Amino acid sequence: MDKINSEEHNKSLNRLFRPRTVAIYEAKSKISYFIEGFIQQGYDLNNLFLISSTEDEISGIKCFKSYDKLPVESIDLLILSVRRELLIPSLKDIFSRIDVKFIHIFTAGTGEADEIGMQIERELKELLDKKPNTRAIGPNCMGIYSPRGKVAYYPSFPIESGNIGLIFQSGDLHSRFIKFGNKKYNLHFSKGISIGNCVDIQISEVLDHFNNDDEIDLICVYFEGFSTLHPKAGINLFNVLKNLKKPVLFMRGGNTERAKKAVISHTGSIATKNKIWDAIYNQTPIIEVPPSVDTLINYTYLFYNYINRFKRLKKKIVYPKDKKVLVVLWSGGFGILATDILTELGLKMPYFEGESIKKLQEIYPSKIGSLANPLDLPWISNTKEYYQISKTAIEEKDIDLVIVETDAWRDIENERFKSYYNNLLNLKKYTESKNKVFILILHEYPSKSREIFYEKLIGDKFIVFPTVKSAAETFLKLYEYGIKLNKKINS
Amino acid sequence: MDKINSEEHNKSLNRLFRPRTVAIYEAKSKISYFIEGFIQQGYDLNNLFLISSTEDEISGIKCFKSYDKLPVESIDLLILSVRRELLIPSLKDIFSRIDVKFIHIFTAGTGEADEIGMQIERELKELLDKKPNTRAIGPNCMGIYSPRGKVAYYPSFPIESGNIGLIFQSGDLHSRFIKFGNKKYNLHFSKGISIGNCVDIQISEVLDHFNNDDEIDLICVYFEGFSTLHPKAGINLFNVLKNLKKPVLFMRGGNTERAKKAVISHTGSIATKNKIWDAIYNQTPIIEVPPSVDTLINYTYLFYNYINRFKRLKKKIVYPKDKKVLVVLWSGGFGILATDILTELGLKMPYFEGESIKKLQEIYPSKIGSLANPLDLPWISNTKEYYQISKTAIEEKDIDLVIVETDAWRDIENERFKSYYNNLLNLKKYTESKNKVFILILHEYPSKSREIFYEKLIGDKFIVFPTVKSAAETFLKLYEYGIKLNKKINS
Repeated sequence: MDKINSEEHNKSLNRLFRPRTVAIYEAKSKISYFIEGFIQQGYDLNNLFLISSTEDEISGIKCFKSYDKLPVESIDLLILSVRRELLIPSLKDIFSRIDVKFIHIFTAGTGEADEIGMQIERELKELLDKKPNTRAIGPNCMGIYSPRGKVAYYPSFPIESGNIGLIFQSGDLHSRFIKFGNKKYNLHFSKGISIGNCVDIQISEVLDHFNNDDEIDLICVYFEGFSTLHPKAGINLFNVLKNLKKPVLFMRGGNTERAKKAVISHTGSIATKNKIWDAIYNQTPIIEVPPSVDTLINYTYLFYNYINRFKRLKKKIVYPKDKKVLVVLWSGGFGILATDILTELGLKMPYFEGESIKKLQEIYPSKIGSLANPLDLPWISNTKEYYQISKTAIEEKDIDLVIVETDAWRDIENERFKSYYNNLLNLKKYTESKNKVFILILHEYPSKSREIFYEKLIGDKFIVFPTVKSAAETFLKLYEYGIKLNKKINS
Repeated sequence: MDKINSEEHNKSLNRLFRPRTVAIYEAKSKISYFIEGFIQQGYDLNNLFLISSTEDEISGIKCFKSYDKLPVESIDLLILSVRRELLIPSLKDIFSRIDVKFIHIFTAGTGEADEIGMQIERELKELLDKKPNTRAIGPNCMGIYSPRGKVAYYPSFPIESGNIGLIFQSGDLHSRFIKFGNKKYNLHFSKGISIGNCVDIQISEVLDHFNNDDEIDLICVYFEGFSTLHPKAGINLFNVLKNLKKPVLFMRGGNTERAKKAVISHTGSIATKNKIWDAIYNQTPIIEVPPSVDTLINYTYLFYNYINRFKRLKKKIVYPKDKKVLVVLWSGGFGILATDILTELGLKMPYFEGESIKKLQEIYPSKIGSLANPLDLPWISNTKEYYQISKTAIEEKDIDLVIVETDAWRDIENERFKSYYNNLLNLKKYTESKNKVFILILHEYPSKSREIFYEKLIGDKFIVFPTVKSAAETFLKLYEYGIKLNKKINS
């Protein structure tokens, strides 16, 4: 019997991300990163209880010898870290002594390991099913990240919160996403969960919770498979997916037959058929993400910035309705490759000729370079004509995506640079005022001036991608989401 | 009439890359990067002649008022930078005054611009055809980079030489390749040419020259199209391509119909049919590169390191004969995605079971992680078992490609790290002693410790890629080249 997926329950998942009391058993120096995580986030240490039979103090916090000594009778979140052989006896012992709302079962080596581990999972489920007021995530997972709840399992996770929700069936990828996404693109998160083997709480439940959580506007999922103990997990997930109110970027691992074998030894889940997934992508508004964390981060970056831009302006989000692209170059050779890449990906690249090119030539008549799209006139990038031509081109063809190639300048204090940078700011402002997408391409290479320039751009909320390919593929996902939304409204 | 493609001529192209005397006309401060390029490379400034009617000195070098004042009667390389209207009269004037072996026509706005520019190119060709001892590259190009000849058109180009040859129909991409390739992967070059609109010297001629040049072991081409003035350029190129003795990484721009339009306004060339190119890729040993400079740099990086490894050992190069891959993980979640990516790309990923997994389990029996390939045991990465298991796995399945995921360590002075790093060095050594490919994956993110670690790895000649996808795609090109070579030998 699956536990209920009710509104009441949704409310109660809140506690998982905002626990008033936390206990860690068995607390050990080896897992002090959990403790450091809480400390770093500013969690009230009076409500963090370490239980250890062997250690007196970890990271400056004194340890309790057993549950009996705790000054509270109820624990909102218990982080359970014991050898797998001790999981069942520990849980029985805990249940007999104290009231626990949520358990994060950290222990690995269960369902993903062997038949003995699988048996432990069956017993776990049985035990938990008898305690409807106690819910558990895991086993084999890193747990919760919730900056508003001041919970983190690594001290390096950002303290500032945002509006992204994460549900990951891999602790490593979950951690990587948070750290890299924050460092690289300044992403901020509302709630994240490394959910593991899903013996009790299912992905569908957390997803449903996030879908109804006003602090979350965008959800990323890394999915490997369903627990064999939950035969209805698939249909439950599908039902949640059908009724999503916000963008969900959905990445699956185990798409190939060979990887399905690997999934078994990773989370012990049953990987699902690709055909079924094709149907799910078709029938629900979720956005498919290829198997790459970098790609998932890229997609999130654009959605996050796009959504938050509208939020800041208190405007309803309008997604791209078409895929007409204008490219403004920094170098001519790049333009040919960009044209190849963009048209191969299916974007439309209006060619300026006849009356429309005349309009542009009136602003800047030139024999060198090109105004035909790509616009190839980097040598005037610091002049008002650069802005005028680009703006006119956007207007003329009702462009949906503006891609501007840029490059780092050695001296960002000189007037030429300042005029150029102003052009970029104004073009961004103009494009976004039309509810369109503005992306800068800054090629990746090791250089101090590039680093400085990149920081400046990210600070000014430019969307910056290293390649035209990644920019275009990401834009297409935003476009695809808009199309899906539209279809849903019209159906 | 095309100029001859004889052995004599091949010899003479040498001079283009090792000019004993260079003149720049019209020398201007605006193009001082040319001059700085020569200075930086250590070119004998007594043999660099600046000709300017307006300036007395540029970058510390005095200018001559006219050709008549030069202390020499012959110039090996003339860099010609005049407005397009002055190209023909300037050339006629030069020819009447001095003997010139090679001209680099820098001037843009000719065949790629309009009918007037096209007419200028026709006249240029006519003029040059009458001077069989004077050859020209361009117009509309950046020219020559040749560290052994002490020639560079940018001061930032590396002085140290290597064994890569570049032929690019885009000055921007040529420059980017040299700068990024050197900075990112420590690539070094023998000769590079930004060749432009190809009014006189053809891509096929330079390619043939490079093919017979013992200083070059690997050639990269960026191709946009043929000059309309050279109807036989296509068949000439094909004939050279058929008889290549070394790897040529061939990237085309203008593959899509939309980009073909853009090519016209970039180099004024006729882009060619994709079907023809499919046949060419099939019938010649060249390696197709998708339209991305980053990808071309990646491919070059692996070929360059691979070739030079054998050269250092004075061994005959052996290319991969199969594509069996072993993955050694840093994190479990990554393993599923890696498996998906690798198998989707067509690599073989032997699954360890039965007798073969028993062998591995004898070295390290564990319930956590996996030995089935991917090897998932990062927590023992600093132990001798890590090396032993990986080595045994490589041996057991005669692995062709070893991919090891790694990550930066904050402290690279501690013993754990040193043991780990030794494992990496030993695994690389072992793999390479079997003539196999060893690639590290170090994910990209902004971090000082990552930077330091990356530098260390590149210094120790590790092949480092940021994603498993780029690593695998690049390996497959090496494999493809081996297959093509084999087919050629057997046919």
